[in-house]
Amino acid sequence: MKDITAAILVIGDEILSGRTKDKNIGYIAECFSNIGVYCKEVRIVPDEESKIIGALNELRKDYTYVMTTGGIGPTHDDITADCVAKAFGVEISENEDAINMLLERIPLEDLNESRRRMARIPHGAKLIENNVSKAPGFQIDNVFVMAGVPAVMQAMLDVVITRIDKGQKLFTCNISTNIKEGDIADILREIQKNNPNIMIGSYPYYTDDGYGANIVCRAKNLNELKNIASIIESSLSAIGNVEVGEFE
Amino acid sequence: MKDITAAILVIGDEILSGRTKDKNIGYIAECFSNIGVYCKEVRIVPDEESKIIGALNELRKDYTYVMTTGGIGPTHDDITADCVAKAFGVEISENEDAINMLLERIPLEDLNESRRRMARIPHGAKLIENNVSKAPGFQIDNVFVMAGVPAVMQAMLDVVITRIDKGQKLFTCNISTNIKEGDIADILREIQKNNPNIMIGSYPYYTDDGYGANIVCRAKNLNELKNIASIIESSLSAIGNVEVGEFE
Repeated sequence: MKDITAAILVIGDEILSGRTKDKNIGYIAECFSNIGVYCKEVRIVPDEESKIIGALNELRKDYTYVMTTGGIGPTHDDITADCVAKAFGVEISENEDAINMLLERIPLEDLNESRRRMARIPHGAKLIENNVSKAPGFQIDNVFVMAGVPAVMQAMLDVVITRIDKGQKLFTCNISTNIKEGDIADILREIQKNNPNIMIGSYPYYTDDGYGANIVCRAKNLNELKNIASIIESSLSAIGNVEVGEFE
Repeated sequence: MKDITAAILVIGDEILSGRTKDKNIGYIAECFSNIGVYCKEVRIVPDEESKIIGALNELRKDYTYVMTTGGIGPTHDDITADCVAKAFGVEISENEDAINMLLERIPLEDLNESRRRMARIPHGAKLIENNVSKAPGFQIDNVFVMAGVPAVMQAMLDVVITRIDKGQKLFTCNISTNIKEGDIADILREIQKNNPNIMIGSYPYYTDDGYGANIVCRAKNLNELKNIASIIESSLSAIGNVEVGEFE
């Protein structure tokens, strides 16, 4: 089976200035891991047409799916929908279904020009409804355009997940140790070399109680994963405390 | 004065899997904003040589500085230093000064092969010391290679900041309103159109008490910023509550 991959494109000056701390990347990445979609790249770009179009056209060619967040509100700095239309070389105009979604929340007399902008959708795109703010995102080809506000993005992602192919979830096991990373690195390197099907990551931690490392093993095959966890446990238990976590 | 720009390249499977939530991007971005270095792009790539080298070579060409985080520890999945050497087409080998830094923390008898890997530095690079774990990062040309563990990255960034050019900090003012974004968008668009030197961003919020929008204005010139804030305040105060924050 071919791997299902994804990239995330975060659009917004406010993230790059550090004023707003992104909360969407980790959320999407974790959600995709759980359904076997491998997030392979993330980019954050400013509210600039050439940057958005450039990144989008590279990513949509390289990965199964691209998720964008941000820039689909009613204000002048919301230019994502127009950029997506340009990236795909299609027209963009007001979409009647999108207007109807807005009208579920906004009285007709309040539907001013700016709010109507939220119903501008590239031709050929399919709407992504959301129950939080009602203003829809949209899908065009393998690109899913979502809001930047986390609660709205999450509502849209629930819809996106029903539309995309799922892959094989990687089984994961976290092995925590109180051993310094430098003392396990030689051993882990050897184990990794002999088991190329397993992804072994090592992450040092520093707490007031001292140093240590968490070893995260991931594999498509649960039995292979259990075997590796047991090898690591027996290799390291002579050096320090080793605790093998759940196989998830 | 030419703008001083930066990109951040985050390296690590653990961020892309969602297991670890990045804390470095927002920290670096905010820190750079405060010294007038404009962060213009961020990429997150996996622990894969071709992805790291490809992204690095694009970013270092496009921006004044590139900051990388992650992948400089002692384990097999730490391949950043070797990738940087390849990206620059230079040799890499054990650096004596780096070994001496490690020896400040690690007894000689514990300096095994894996730990010595942390002293492998591309030729021509300048070390970036850190007082947390002692293992150094390094600078080569306009690229600064830092650790992924936030406490260590922050210690290295303190050093990096002493070495880079500072630009003109943008003055910032946050204007909070209890007005829905769709009700201010027309007005803001007009103000932005007439004042291209000011960056005006609008960020909706949703709380239990209702909706609203924060308007963030940024400018190189403080008087221009104060003028815009006053224009926005007087334009919006007929519609709802408007609170102009500090000019920072």
